[in-house]
Amino acid sequence: MHLPAQIGDYTDFYVGIHHATNVGRQFRPDQPLMPNYKYVPIGYHGRASSVRSSGEPVIRPSGQRKAGDADAPEFGPSRRLDYELELGIWIGRGNELGTPIPIGRADEHIAGFCLLNDWSARDLQAWEYQPLGPFLAKNFLTSVSPWVVSPQALAPFRKPMPPRPPGDPQPLPYLQEAGDGALAIQLEVTLSTGQMRSAGLPPHVLSRGSADAAMYWSATQIVAHHSSNGCNLQPGDLIGTGTLSTDSEQGLGSLLEISRGGKQPVELPSGETRSFLEDGDEVTLRAWCEAEGAVRIGIGECVGRVIASAAS
Amino acid sequence: MHLPAQIGDYTDFYVGIHHATNVGRQFRPDQPLMPNYKYVPIGYHGRASSVRSSGEPVIRPSGQRKAGDADAPEFGPSRRLDYELELGIWIGRGNELGTPIPIGRADEHIAGFCLLNDWSARDLQAWEYQPLGPFLAKNFLTSVSPWVVSPQALAPFRKPMPPRPPGDPQPLPYLQEAGDGALAIQLEVTLSTGQMRSAGLPPHVLSRGSADAAMYWSATQIVAHHSSNGCNLQPGDLIGTGTLSTDSEQGLGSLLEISRGGKQPVELPSGETRSFLEDGDEVTLRAWCEAEGAVRIGIGECVGRVIASAAS
Repeated sequence: MHLPAQIGDYTDFYVGIHHATNVGRQFRPDQPLMPNYKYVPIGYHGRASSVRSSGEPVIRPSGQRKAGDADAPEFGPSRRLDYELELGIWIGRGNELGTPIPIGRADEHIAGFCLLNDWSARDLQAWEYQPLGPFLAKNFLTSVSPWVVSPQALAPFRKPMPPRPPGDPQPLPYLQEAGDGALAIQLEVTLSTGQMRSAGLPPHVLSRGSADAAMYWSATQIVAHHSSNGCNLQPGDLIGTGTLSTDSEQGLGSLLEISRGGKQPVELPSGETRSFLEDGDEVTLRAWCEAEGAVRIGIGECVGRVIASAAS
Repeated sequence: MHLPAQIGDYTDFYVGIHHATNVGRQFRPDQPLMPNYKYVPIGYHGRASSVRSSGEPVIRPSGQRKAGDADAPEFGPSRRLDYELELGIWIGRGNELGTPIPIGRADEHIAGFCLLNDWSARDLQAWEYQPLGPFLAKNFLTSVSPWVVSPQALAPFRKPMPPRPPGDPQPLPYLQEAGDGALAIQLEVTLSTGQMRSAGLPPHVLSRGSADAAMYWSATQIVAHHSSNGCNLQPGDLIGTGTLSTDSEQGLGSLLEISRGGKQPVELPSGETRSFLEDGDEVTLRAWCEAEGAVRIGIGECVGRVIASAAS
């Protein structure tokens, strides 16, 4: 399998509000969601060169990590390697530099969707991310499912965005959309360890959720926002939604959330536990759509197995 | 003039320690430099699609901006448009995913240098940047000088990195370099307004400084750090150093610093004042090297003139 496009730029968003809240609570207990979150579809640039198709090995990255009580950081293999369950948006038609895409036409620029795993080294991230955001904690690998699922195929599974909770602001005019922005895509993450595979145990389900229950901003709002300053999108650009967690304990899209930052390890059928990923662990993202009167469609899968770095 | 390479990925660093201190003081008076700054060459991903050669018009971006005393943000043309004086590093030879570049070989991966203007909308930046860093405040345009100045041409102007101030930590081993990491490149920024040009007035010098007095981390440390987690660099990748301010009042590399966040407007020979850039303003970055016994070399220039956005 190959990448479906040559990726000019890869951008990652952060529209999973339950994820943002869960993670924010760990990093900033006093203020899980920043004041901008309900106005701005938060996004940041990622690394295009290290996006790979499903199946690419996940080489454990090394980097600077600093224990809370240590005087100084040390350099070594990440001890808090994690996955992030996301959808990917493939851009079809681009826009000229200086010419924003109005939200009413954003749909025309989306070629399709995929699954995306934003592999993350949480220890590197916690130490490096201020003030300019995640960098080496993320850019060692991003995996995508190899199928581009078209908006046409997903049409039967569109629905209105969930109503905003009372007290939340309405989107600014440039982000107000008329159509059905939400996608009823079912999501599942499973984990198998080397020991589980040796024992013939099936993969363990880490989470089940759905995209429409996770996204505070829609794909078209993402595209309109991204280009609202005149930034030019190009055919083949890839945009991640950010981690898609639901508000349920069963719908959390990363180990950081499931293990409460490592405080509540997951128990596996093999008797092993996991706070974060160990060498030999294999994570599989899966997605599908089903609705009465519509043909069930699969979104494909996105798999990655962790291997030790040569240096470690 | 065209871009010297097809840019796969553009990364911007933040190694100008005086700039980081000056800006940090405005955003976070209690903690201008984060605890990681003297250990980690801070960097983040930028937008490759909107990098353009010198001369490209600077279309004033619109975006969300929120006045300090306002209840909510509003969307409109940036009122705090700024430039940032940087050097750009062009990557020549790449590295494979999962294979870090050791610092002793980082030099072999640098094809050359240029000037880089990281145009910035400060009002958009202040509102959007937490927690994942600058995004729309930066990705509407990045300008580079069109010449690639080779490391060979710069060899006579290399010198040891300045000694770290007492109390600063030594770089971790993967960032320790033996050679002369600093570049004695002279830097100058000038501004001309429409009114100045009409009156036949020459451009006004906003700053004069040098790269070696500004950079806390060298180009080779940047390359080694960027790939230290296995991230793959590719031929044609562009890396910005971050804004290069010296510790002198005359060597500040952005209007944000020169005008103290807008509190001390610059007085121009036309009698005008500027806190930030107005439509018609033209910013020129220039750089050169000179030393006794060596031929003077020019690095070229990087020019951009601000124009109103169609929407404004």
